[in-house]
Amino acid sequence: MLEHLKKEVLKANLDLVKYGLVIFTWGNASAIDRERGLIVIKPSGVEYDALSADDMVVVNLEGKTVEGALNPSSDTPTHIELYKAFPEIGGIVHTHSRHATAWAQANMALPVMGTTHADYFHGPVPCTRPMLAPEVETDYEKNTGAVIIECFEKRNPLHTPGVLVSNHGPFTWGRTAAEAVHNSVVLEEIARMGLITRQLNAEMPMNNLLVEKHYNRKHGAGAYYGQKKKP
Amino acid sequence: MLEHLKKEVLKANLDLVKYGLVIFTWGNASAIDRERGLIVIKPSGVEYDALSADDMVVVNLEGKTVEGALNPSSDTPTHIELYKAFPEIGGIVHTHSRHATAWAQANMALPVMGTTHADYFHGPVPCTRPMLAPEVETDYEKNTGAVIIECFEKRNPLHTPGVLVSNHGPFTWGRTAAEAVHNSVVLEEIARMGLITRQLNAEMPMNNLLVEKHYNRKHGAGAYYGQKKKP
Amino acid sequence: MLEHLKKEVLKANLDLVKYGLVIFTWGNASAIDRERGLIVIKPSGVEYDALSADDMVVVNLEGKTVEGALNPSSDTPTHIELYKAFPEIGGIVHTHSRHATAWAQANMALPVMGTTHADYFHGPVPCTRPMLAPEVETDYEKNTGAVIIECFEKRNPLHTPGVLVSNHGPFTWGRTAAEAVHNSVVLEEIARMGLITRQLNAEMPMNNLLVEKHYNRKHGAGAYYGQKKKP
Amino acid sequence: MLEHLKKEVLKANLDLVKYGLVIFTWGNASAIDRERGLIVIKPSGVEYDALSADDMVVVNLEGKTVEGALNPSSDTPTHIELYKAFPEIGGIVHTHSRHATAWAQANMALPVMGTTHADYFHGPVPCTRPMLAPEVETDYEKNTGAVIIECFEKRNPLHTPGVLVSNHGPFTWGRTAAEAVHNSVVLEEIARMGLITRQLNAEMPMNNLLVEKHYNRKHGAGAYYGQKKKP
Repeated sequence: MLEHLKKEVLKANLDLVKYGLVIFTWGNASAIDRERGLIVIKPSGVEYDALSADDMVVVNLEGKTVEGALNPSSDTPTHIELYKAFPEIGGIVHTHSRHATAWAQANMALPVMGTTHADYFHGPVPCTRPMLAPEVETDYEKNTGAVIIECFEKRNPLHTPGVLVSNHGPFTWGRTAAEAVHNSVVLEEIARMGLITRQLNAEMPMNNLLVEKHYNRKHGAGAYYGQKKKP
Repeated sequence: MLEHLKKEVLKANLDLVKYGLVIFTWGNASAIDRERGLIVIKPSGVEYDALSADDMVVVNLEGKTVEGALNPSSDTPTHIELYKAFPEIGGIVHTHSRHATAWAQANMALPVMGTTHADYFHGPVPCTRPMLAPEVETDYEKNTGAVIIECFEKRNPLHTPGVLVSNHGPFTWGRTAAEAVHNSVVLEEIARMGLITRQLNAEMPMNNLLVEKHYNRKHGAGAYYGQKKKP
Repeated sequence: MLEHLKKEVLKANLDLVKYGLVIFTWGNASAIDRERGLIVIKPSGVEYDALSADDMVVVNLEGKTVEGALNPSSDTPTHIELYKAFPEIGGIVHTHSRHATAWAQANMALPVMGTTHADYFHGPVPCTRPMLAPEVETDYEKNTGAVIIECFEKRNPLHTPGVLVSNHGPFTWGRTAAEAVHNSVVLEEIARMGLITRQLNAEMPMNNLLVEKHYNRKHGAGAYYGQKKKP
Repeated sequence: MLEHLKKEVLKANLDLVKYGLVIFTWGNASAIDRERGLIVIKPSGVEYDALSADDMVVVNLEGKTVEGALNPSSDTPTHIELYKAFPEIGGIVHTHSRHATAWAQANMALPVMGTTHADYFHGPVPCTRPMLAPEVETDYEKNTGAVIIECFEKRNPLHTPGVLVSNHGPFTWGRTAAEAVHNSVVLEEIARMGLITRQLNAEMPMNNLLVEKHYNRKHGAGAYYGQKKKP
């Protein structure tokens, strides 16, 4: 069942290791088959070098395991909330990557400081509000999804394909699991560049004209970056 | 004698190199056979790529070498004190890993700043008090153990599986040598994330509800992270 | 056509990955054949591990593609402006390398702080002025070249073989594409050392006598560094 | 001539690359045969991956090339001064390693902040005074040696096996070229840890009792670290 998607999700999980974003079991990637309403996700607490495509767990949008011998990631309810709220997205990644996590721990949104950021995120990467006692005590992972969604009331999730969960770490997404991984790498890099920029000049003086230009030359109506048809 | 434990201890020592926590001879790992009261530990000042399982030294709880041609690690008396005081633990690691050592050199406990920390340490990683002249002059390594134990009078060593020795560096432990290595990697990573968090926001605003939630979902009575039975 | 130059440009692009200066498609290298007035440049938005020499695009100084099935780098108009304005140079590199980009994002020139810098750059690495609305809205990449050239009115581009484009990132150049890559590695390293130096001592107290000495012992009339004839 | 020493010096130079202390041609290692009064040193400006033992240059204490087709390192006169002034040493290394160079650029001695430092350096790593115009203009590299020696009037060069040359970078030494490389790695690491320590706590509160203890347990009369006889 969903063999192709399982391979994609396995690759996405392994790429998190390859790009240096996770150690041990500190991350997870998933993808959704929108037609069937089924999500493929990494099993909980299994180390990456032991993973095979068959270990991927299939769950439905109620969180029930449909196929797979292992427990799904403990963060599965967060993924489900995001898939429900953001119909445009097809893949989600969660990591504890170093610099993105540090911004999350500092409880700070990541402002746009350069074109590297604007090539992918059309504005700051927001940081969620702190969670309240009832949200933490019951259905914690589902409520983690809810505070992310609250953050995106006025944002397009494909224009801002990621978020910093306060005191926790980043979630990113995209049209596919691979794109979610890609955005995860980008977020870690701009979080790292952003730290350094701030250390050099606390004012971080961004020319906002460049945000529009760079975002739109890649993603706007008249985008001209890259190839029409990938070679 | 204790061939299986020697292999475990060798692997633990080599993993310290693999994870980038030690260079040259800057670290050591040990494990204890509680039934026999014997400790297996790295020999002193021998480089990692020259180590074999047979080079591991077996010492008893009085510090006497029971088997092995080489001198045991000069830190052996510290390990012995910790094994005596903390009956729950089965393995110990000492490194000079960069960021944990820097916090130790700064004479500062590492506060909880995020869920990455709370997934493993149920509160701050404490820093020992400075050692006094008589403690340094005589039985220095044994007294290093004593100041660590002093720090844990009101702490459960399995809930806080590591410490920063003031002006020196980290010791971590666990139920096995492998677990001690794992905690050593975690400590270095949260020490590094903690530095960055502090550089971004000196207030390091932690939501303490998350400490309880994250520690307990992995280690509490109703823990639900991971697999019931490791695949 | 220009097979030899295509290989050089391919190697220059791949070296950017090897030296850790780019990930994904975040950089480009080019070279010029001055006799024919033709530029060889990386195609736009193609990942490095998929590149072959035949993928390199040949464009003329009007920006028209003369050979190649793919679109040239979206930064081609910047390269063209620089080749036109700096007749001494034969190769250009653009990256988003971490520390050089952070200085660019901080809108700060990189001052000379040591001999490592002075061995290659005879003075600070300048930062361009912020671009204005009409410059960004129309012919943005060409105008990026123009603000760089404005910065070099009183500078010799071979004595200062690179620049920080405000809020964007570094461009470097040299007599060949390989030399441009070399200067790109140097710029990233001195940007990183410069950050640390500044964190240690905000005064960054440079002995300017050493700038002249080091620049000239490598590049001056009586240069004595290296071999007369490379072995 | 001196084939064995040439191999040692080649290995020392290549180890600088292996340990990440140099890129391109940014460093050099040498060793001396005290009986014959001859120094073996890296050729100037030759990249490391092209080096063979036969490329090593033999010079006498007057700086005259005795054997070798290539020019010796431009820093040869500095090495010669140090060999003349410090009869205890047998090998010298110069690098532009990142963090040691940053301390040199900041014009600051590296204070003892922990036992990692005290295991190798019996006190701060000093920083030379700024060089004066006549010292830079004539016999610059020889005078670089002179300002280092000035720094060691009241220091034992084997107890403080390295120095930061102001605005330039580190020199380290030892009884052999291999020991000089080892000290070079140590210096870079303690310079890096020192930066972080200072960022965490500008007071850097060192317990000086530990300096004596750690230096002496490795290097003092009653040293007990390591093996009597290396296995």
